[in-house]
Amino acid sequence: MADAVLFEFLHTEMVAELWAPDPDPGSGGKRRSLSVLEGLGFRVGQALGERLPRETPAFREELDALKFLCRDLWAAMFQKHMDGLRTNHQGTYVLQDNSFPLLVTMGSGPQYLEEAPKFLAFTCGLLCGALHTLGFQSLVTASVASLPACKFQVVIQKS
Amino acid sequence: MADAVLFEFLHTEMVAELWAPDPDPGSGGKRRSLSVLEGLGFRVGQALGERLPRETPAFREELDALKFLCRDLWAAMFQKHMDGLRTNHQGTYVLQDNSFPLLVTMGSGPQYLEEAPKFLAFTCGLLCGALHTLGFQSLVTASVASLPACKFQVVIQKS
Repeated sequence: MADAVLFEFLHTEMVAELWAPDPDPGSGGKRRSLSVLEGLGFRVGQALGERLPRETPAFREELDALKFLCRDLWAAMFQKHMDGLRTNHQGTYVLQDNSFPLLVTMGSGPQYLEEAPKFLAFTCGLLCGALHTLGFQSLVTASVASLPACKFQVVIQKS
Repeated sequence: MADAVLFEFLHTEMVAELWAPDPDPGSGGKRRSLSVLEGLGFRVGQALGERLPRETPAFREELDALKFLCRDLWAAMFQKHMDGLRTNHQGTYVLQDNSFPLLVTMGSGPQYLEEAPKFLAFTCGLLCGALHTLGFQSLVTASVASLPACKFQVVIQKS
């Protein structure tokens, strides 16, 4: 489906573009690039959260919001559902994607692992932005143990 | 359709991000930003040109390639066809979109006209990149007379 491919290509080139400017890997450049990508993702996630069809006008329960991300948001972005959702019932959620599309184009050897964070930052921001639109403040991080699988950890911030 | 919305949101935020860094509008900053957006578009267009289904393995005629952009490429990006295609039969083509989706979110008053180029640069690059994949060197520029309509002018470079 060309639409999905279009988003993936644009994401790849955007990462390449935003990663390139800082010639000094020892400086804060990488952190800055990650933060720019996260910020972009946040704003896209906010906008997307407003546009996706929702059966209920509000999500009172955190778990409903997280299920919405795993099903509807993931389907809109990647034409599939998240593979797993676990929670400690204390505001921490782990979302598992066994084959994350934005990592699939990378090689799968361990030597690529350190390249992974730049392909996850946008989506971390996007999840956080979508949750923000749904009324939840959160911290979202991602980790990769074995490419192209990855986990997003969402910690809901209590006000 | 959320996929299309996703691309449009990402494009909007990317333009905002790449437009912002240069605080001095009098310098070459705007030209540089436009050129970065065009470059991004070019690479996405190249990749997209390789992935879109093509009935014939090669486009011998320029006009076939241009029709492909107006139908298949536009459908993949914007779920519609280009509204018009004219040519002088000497290598110059004018592609008309009466309601270009990446301009629709802008206001339509004449005061917005000068903002338009930054929303067109990526797509100019993309058309050029897709043509490159199809075997044609080109120069692509865009113009807006009345928002949200716009015209892309493609000049095929003879080798």
